[in-house]
Amino acid sequence: MAAMADETGLEKNPANYVPLSPLSHLRRARDVFGQREALVYGDRRYNWNEVHERCSRMASALSSMGVKPGDVVSAVCPNIPAIAEAHFGVPAAGAVLNAINVRLDADTIAYVFDHCDARVALVDSQFLPTVQRALELMDGSGPELIEVADPAAGFPASGEYQEYEELLATGDPSFRWHDPEDEWDSISLNYTSGTTGRPKGVVCHHRGAYLMTMGTVISWEMTLYPRFLAVVPLFHCNGWCHTWMMPLVGGTIICCRNINAESIFGAIRDERITHFGGAPIVLNMLVNAPDAVRVRFDHEIRVFTAGAPPSPSTIEAVEELGFTIMQVYGLTETYGHVTECLHPAEWQGIGSEERYARMARQGIRIPVMEDIDVVDQQTREPVPHDGTTLGEVIMKGNTVMRGYYRNPEATREAFAGGSFQTGDIAYRDEAGYIQITDRLKDIIISGGENVSSVEVEATLMAHPAVSLCAVVARPDAKWGETPCAFVELKENMVAGEAELIAFCRERLAGFKTPKSVFFQELPKTSTGKIQKFELRQQARSM
Amino acid sequence: MAAMADETGLEKNPANYVPLSPLSHLRRARDVFGQREALVYGDRRYNWNEVHERCSRMASALSSMGVKPGDVVSAVCPNIPAIAEAHFGVPAAGAVLNAINVRLDADTIAYVFDHCDARVALVDSQFLPTVQRALELMDGSGPELIEVADPAAGFPASGEYQEYEELLATGDPSFRWHDPEDEWDSISLNYTSGTTGRPKGVVCHHRGAYLMTMGTVISWEMTLYPRFLAVVPLFHCNGWCHTWMMPLVGGTIICCRNINAESIFGAIRDERITHFGGAPIVLNMLVNAPDAVRVRFDHEIRVFTAGAPPSPSTIEAVEELGFTIMQVYGLTETYGHVTECLHPAEWQGIGSEERYARMARQGIRIPVMEDIDVVDQQTREPVPHDGTTLGEVIMKGNTVMRGYYRNPEATREAFAGGSFQTGDIAYRDEAGYIQITDRLKDIIISGGENVSSVEVEATLMAHPAVSLCAVVARPDAKWGETPCAFVELKENMVAGEAELIAFCRERLAGFKTPKSVFFQELPKTSTGKIQKFELRQQARSM
Repeated sequence: MAAMADETGLEKNPANYVPLSPLSHLRRARDVFGQREALVYGDRRYNWNEVHERCSRMASALSSMGVKPGDVVSAVCPNIPAIAEAHFGVPAAGAVLNAINVRLDADTIAYVFDHCDARVALVDSQFLPTVQRALELMDGSGPELIEVADPAAGFPASGEYQEYEELLATGDPSFRWHDPEDEWDSISLNYTSGTTGRPKGVVCHHRGAYLMTMGTVISWEMTLYPRFLAVVPLFHCNGWCHTWMMPLVGGTIICCRNINAESIFGAIRDERITHFGGAPIVLNMLVNAPDAVRVRFDHEIRVFTAGAPPSPSTIEAVEELGFTIMQVYGLTETYGHVTECLHPAEWQGIGSEERYARMARQGIRIPVMEDIDVVDQQTREPVPHDGTTLGEVIMKGNTVMRGYYRNPEATREAFAGGSFQTGDIAYRDEAGYIQITDRLKDIIISGGENVSSVEVEATLMAHPAVSLCAVVARPDAKWGETPCAFVELKENMVAGEAELIAFCRERLAGFKTPKSVFFQELPKTSTGKIQKFELRQQARSM
Repeated sequence: MAAMADETGLEKNPANYVPLSPLSHLRRARDVFGQREALVYGDRRYNWNEVHERCSRMASALSSMGVKPGDVVSAVCPNIPAIAEAHFGVPAAGAVLNAINVRLDADTIAYVFDHCDARVALVDSQFLPTVQRALELMDGSGPELIEVADPAAGFPASGEYQEYEELLATGDPSFRWHDPEDEWDSISLNYTSGTTGRPKGVVCHHRGAYLMTMGTVISWEMTLYPRFLAVVPLFHCNGWCHTWMMPLVGGTIICCRNINAESIFGAIRDERITHFGGAPIVLNMLVNAPDAVRVRFDHEIRVFTAGAPPSPSTIEAVEELGFTIMQVYGLTETYGHVTECLHPAEWQGIGSEERYARMARQGIRIPVMEDIDVVDQQTREPVPHDGTTLGEVIMKGNTVMRGYYRNPEATREAFAGGSFQTGDIAYRDEAGYIQITDRLKDIIISGGENVSSVEVEATLMAHPAVSLCAVVARPDAKWGETPCAFVELKENMVAGEAELIAFCRERLAGFKTPKSVFFQELPKTSTGKIQKFELRQQARSM
């Protein structure tokens, strides 16, 4: 360090150094916002005092079950109170939260349980059969199960396991938390969805989770007492860390078990939601919702969207519904969003087509990120801010993962060159805003030219009949690859292959225009990402 | 640490660990807010690109002068651009900023220069004679001086030293900053005003300065692009760290050289100020300003007040002018404010007298503080939240100083028991809000009863003729001590000793009522604190 001439007595001590952790936010919320509403699900309403107590009970009960600091506790739950509480209760036991995608198959769940050696798993009754199959597939005994029943949603307790509320009842409400001794201690372990091969376990630490909450308040221009609807699954990058942020701002978390237009509009009406996040596919649900489902509102609702680049048309349609939208971008490896498409005042003066095109860019780094750049894939030098030159997005900052669990080779590869290498291909515009054009593996190379699937998709989305689309590479004898489009049409709308190809041809260079268009429902992951690897297989076999 | 079963490959690396520092905010502001207005002083206006460049030049020029990481660079300047820039330029050279109170006498300045071994000092032309006298008093040669001329304010360059703008011209605008290798590295060294004995040097680090900025955005409910008037002197706890915060939110710093009602109202009118901080004495200036000076405004202006407990009457009067006010409280040892008097919605329903009384409390801890409590002076156990039991305020958190420079004994004493001991006496109300009643050394003990000078002062301030007051202990043969009041009356108002004593007697217990009242101008420090030690001496000799 850069020592002063005399450093005597200037060491860290318990008064001036406390490891950064989102646990501090919950402790403060109890002291400062104790009587304010904290967590809502259907008829259930808890204030921050109660959430603090329930999380303390969870930490106590897990410790009594033998969970030790550094152990992993899994959860297989949709967005219900138990998983929100686990974001505090599991770390308060010193343990690491492994929130598992509820859509995963038994085989993959078994792999995850085994890979992270989960000690306990909180399992929603709906997903109990899959988890039970997973346990049968395992060599060892697997985690001890705690069942989280949700009778109001139609999923009563099976009676085979200790139920979550019973578990809490056994816990000590004044349990002394195992605060992290080191802010580098792990807080969560999130397995990437893994389009090919086995999923990788992304290890996040208390420091990063804390800083993510601080930066997001600024990025979202959030003042006190937001009413936050948990739409993004908490098993997806810990719901972009928003649950950890709510006690910091005295906010209320409203749980959304079923992600559909009816639930979201219902919550806007009944709970006066002010903030939520969602993938573009969720936004499309809102846009395409029938009139009977739609709800008018007169207050500001701020929406973060991420998970896939939204098309300009989607952004326009969502704004027309009255939402204030900002795109953010990130990866599981970065705790969620690490860029934001800040909307400068000057943009109000430009044409709406150009404005929505700019809002569809991923933008610039959020406050806690130290560096995000786009570099040439060969030279690793930053690309010019010219709106065309492509390169790979690389990142540095305190909200980049520790590494992949039990996978030092993949970790080394991800961090080669001293930055985190995202595998995303992008350019930077004149203002330095990043526009992702593709995942490295999604790029289409036609006649030696790079074609951005994102660009072709945005063009198709501008067609009035197109509800959703995806463009992938199709092998071609002459061109190597050509763009191949898969399209979902809006209800009661028609458009044929030739019409869509002509529509694109008017707006795109010839080599970027799809040579074939197929109409079908698109395969999606639970987080709303379109599964392009499946479409690529289809395109190959067609 | 709480290790996971396998920690292989999960170490810190340059991609996932960057020392926290407010320097990151300036770097990001250049990238994200480059064209936005950053710093304003009279006719001078710089955007964030320009401020970044000027700070890089400063760091480069200081390095060329031989300043090395860990060295101290002093500044003796009012709130002008040079000292705002020094908050970034000095740390960018790896050095430690020592902002010195411009009101200090030559002897004390000489002591500070010598104690911290300042290498360079940036000195405003107005204060050059005092600093020159200080250098004459020193045994060594003292720091090399850079003169900061301000001809527009009537302080042209003396011609005896290199001028600040000349210095910047010698610097390299693309100088590579000496970012901290360790976030525990020192960023600033602030000498406490020291009412008795020599001032102590409070050492702050990059980590704390960074976290202070993040927490303050939340505490102040600040969204993007504030227009911040720098009223609090930057030599006072680095202006509560607000200068470091502005690039984080794309804000504009408007410099206020002369702190008076005319300057502040003028900036509100001309620069559309949205935020400023100031001691209660500054608020009283605004309240008591003549009509010709006052400016009406129709936008929200948020004001932090701290430095001394404001009276409920001051808060009421400032609110009537249209300001949104929140009291905060802290010490030089805590980088400034670490409690905030959050104003819950419920307070709107209570009577205004009670509401202003609550707003005069210091409140609860801000987001980045880990623990603030009031403990019994003997047992060190927390006092009950009963609104009466007195104890000492203690604190823990990442915005507590590293320690006192070259004074390990004072450091040890301050941190005895594992908390920072403030020496401030307070109670906690039913909501846990802290009300400071006195500095330990200011408390009055009359007939064995503790009398809070703050309480008696608040009572006197409610009298329509009282502009400002201070209450201290006066030795008394019978009672040991009795409260003795010093009062400044409002212009054209009259009130006699007997009237004020009777006014207090109606509202306070007999032992709390002042036995004597003197009418005079009160002695104040440059930061608006009343110098009670002088009044105590006066009271003793009267």
